[in-house]
Amino acid sequence: VAKRLEKFKTTIFTQMSSLAIKHGAINLGQGFPNFDGPEFVKEAAIQAIKDGKNQYARGYGVPDLNSAVAERFKKDTGLVVDPEKEVTVTSGCTEAIAATILGLINPGDEVILFAPFYDSYEATLSMAGAKIKGITLRPPDFSVPIEELKAAITKDTRAILINTPHNPTGKMFTRKELDVIASLCVENDVLVITDEVYDKLAFEADHISMASLPGMYERTVTLNSLGKTFSLTGWKIGWAIAPPHLIWGVRQAHAFLTFATSTPMQYAAATALRAPDSYYEELKRDYMAKKAILVEGLEAVGFVVYPSSGTYFVVVDHTPFGLDNDIAFCEYLIKEVGVVAIPTSVFYLNPEEGKNLVRFTFCKDENTLRSAVERMKQKL
Amino acid sequence: VAKRLEKFKTTIFTQMSSLAIKHGAINLGQGFPNFDGPEFVKEAAIQAIKDGKNQYARGYGVPDLNSAVAERFKKDTGLVVDPEKEVTVTSGCTEAIAATILGLINPGDEVILFAPFYDSYEATLSMAGAKIKGITLRPPDFSVPIEELKAAITKDTRAILINTPHNPTGKMFTRKELDVIASLCVENDVLVITDEVYDKLAFEADHISMASLPGMYERTVTLNSLGKTFSLTGWKIGWAIAPPHLIWGVRQAHAFLTFATSTPMQYAAATALRAPDSYYEELKRDYMAKKAILVEGLEAVGFVVYPSSGTYFVVVDHTPFGLDNDIAFCEYLIKEVGVVAIPTSVFYLNPEEGKNLVRFTFCKDENTLRSAVERMKQKL
Ligand SMILES: CSCCC(=O)C(=O)O
Ligand SMILES: CSCCC(=O)C(=O)O
Repeated sequence: VAKRLEKFKTTIFTQMSSLAIKHGAINLGQGFPNFDGPEFVKEAAIQAIKDGKNQYARGYGVPDLNSAVAERFKKDTGLVVDPEKEVTVTSGCTEAIAATILGLINPGDEVILFAPFYDSYEATLSMAGAKIKGITLRPPDFSVPIEELKAAITKDTRAILINTPHNPTGKMFTRKELDVIASLCVENDVLVITDEVYDKLAFEADHISMASLPGMYERTVTLNSLGKTFSLTGWKIGWAIAPPHLIWGVRQAHAFLTFATSTPMQYAAATALRAPDSYYEELKRDYMAKKAILVEGLEAVGFVVYPSSGTYFVVVDHTPFGLDNDIAFCEYLIKEVGVVAIPTSVFYLNPEEGKNLVRFTFCKDENTLRSAVERMKQKL
Repeated sequence: VAKRLEKFKTTIFTQMSSLAIKHGAINLGQGFPNFDGPEFVKEAAIQAIKDGKNQYARGYGVPDLNSAVAERFKKDTGLVVDPEKEVTVTSGCTEAIAATILGLINPGDEVILFAPFYDSYEATLSMAGAKIKGITLRPPDFSVPIEELKAAITKDTRAILINTPHNPTGKMFTRKELDVIASLCVENDVLVITDEVYDKLAFEADHISMASLPGMYERTVTLNSLGKTFSLTGWKIGWAIAPPHLIWGVRQAHAFLTFATSTPMQYAAATALRAPDSYYEELKRDYMAKKAILVEGLEAVGFVVYPSSGTYFVVVDHTPFGLDNDIAFCEYLIKEVGVVAIPTSVFYLNPEEGKNLVRFTFCKDENTLRSAVERMKQKL
């Protein structure tokens, strides 16, 4: 294995989902729904396949999806972008992250990352040879330590990577935090790469796109995807939105990482993004009900549950149950209790910092959530 | 744009397919069929979507596809591989190339590449920081210059990249050439990365997989995909086969480039790979008929047509028509004649070497091929 990847292990999601199957445990680990995506989107994919939309798509996206992405972005942020020149479709947001980082970051560039973070950020920054500076968001509110952030910025800082709503904590960056980050970026000529795949799962606050802040669009790459919003995580449709001078790097890396993305699924994604507001409202309502079941359950079980404002995740402190660290706790939970959670230490540059925290997802049907809580009540 | 990608332009495929649309030209450029994939495969995808196979696949492939890939490989090569430990599913062969190179090649490693080559090889080797050594295959037969190859191998040579049947020339590496490469690799402890996406389009010779040569499996990463064999280039399902010590690097890079590949398409791909022999025979028969139309037509038009043994491409010398170079010729062909071909100079480290050659594809229905020939007969 190449040195750039030596330190990384099998991703925790693969590990935990395999263990879930092996032990017949209820999987509240990896973030995929155990219910299906909406019929109208599945129907659109089926129609595209039947209609023969089965050959290479244009590398940066089928025109209809590029347009749908731009329309959606305008609805969400008020920003008008050129679908042909400022949108690139990718094979999921994971590819959008890789393409953005490999397309824009040079070896030695400093990039600031908030821990905990989705593991691909660190891995792709390593592939790019970036110098990673981690800033830890700490419980209970996971707020941004502004002074620490200021101190971390140097003349070599190329980008700050943010993720709001935030996986795994459910934190949503506040307007104030985003304002501070934005002005630091403008002052120091720093880019923002912002992963907003959970933007439609914003429960306790309004989602704010970094790109919509004054002066920020021109220095921001906004990443999003279909999977979470439409409960179709397996379709792997993502995209990047950025001004032409930045999207160019993303497109070039994308052209050589995957060249293009599944054509029929892109047509379906375009249909999905044009869903009426009622779709989004219902999605939110459903998830709020699920969240209530899980959060109340986890509290009743005896966890310290940290407030989650968005995403379909909550983070808890497992130490009331007396196990040494998050990995030991998750192993116990799988084998003895029959429930899968995700240990968070893998999402920190310094794993020690995550050892008290584990993540549960509530993107499961209500009965599954209730059964998981029941198992924990009985056996923890 | 990051330095690793600075020298690359918009891929020629995107450029040429856009021009084809703009000028209403017949597109014999990028290698995608203008006919649809088989009904039984499309039906399998539709069924998978209906059955709710729409969430994240296992990162390295849904078990059924890993098995189907291993079964197919055994039929083709006689080699028995463990579907769980030696197969990784990717988002098309382009991703398999990127994951293999980023997963196994370190900065400074020397990698030998035969020119002309599919452009992603050079780009991903640049991303990996490899030192590229090009060896040019020259017309009329594009045979491997063995002495040059021997001289190119040093103690820092990490891998040789081959592609058979070969895009763009249609050359198939002979048993003798493969034997020499294999013994050089064994002697010098060098890996082979072999792109065999056109293996089922072998017309004038039998396809030989490098991995099947004595001593080679353990040092070979074999790449393949669904697109060309099943006329579904837009589905973007590819895979890598390699022994565990090599597949590990591929899997790690894949995990962070895309994480997983479209779930319903993977189920359909498994169905496809289990097609009866008659499917493959018919595919070959159809393509031989198409090839005859194009080759005879190009000869009648006045090109020097170089023999193509496999792939759905032929390379010709355009100089009888008096234009300066391949790019000028292709521009003339699009604008004045209404036919798109691919200039080959972009597939060489030294573009000069490709300036006499352009590539045509015959993966189009027979009428389209005939119309293209007709246009050239009238206007060239
Ligand atoms: C590939 S897992 C992607 C992110 C996610 O769903 C998770 O964090 O569980
Ligand atoms: C992305 S184009 C892939 C290869 C191909 O089809 C071509 O060479 O035309």
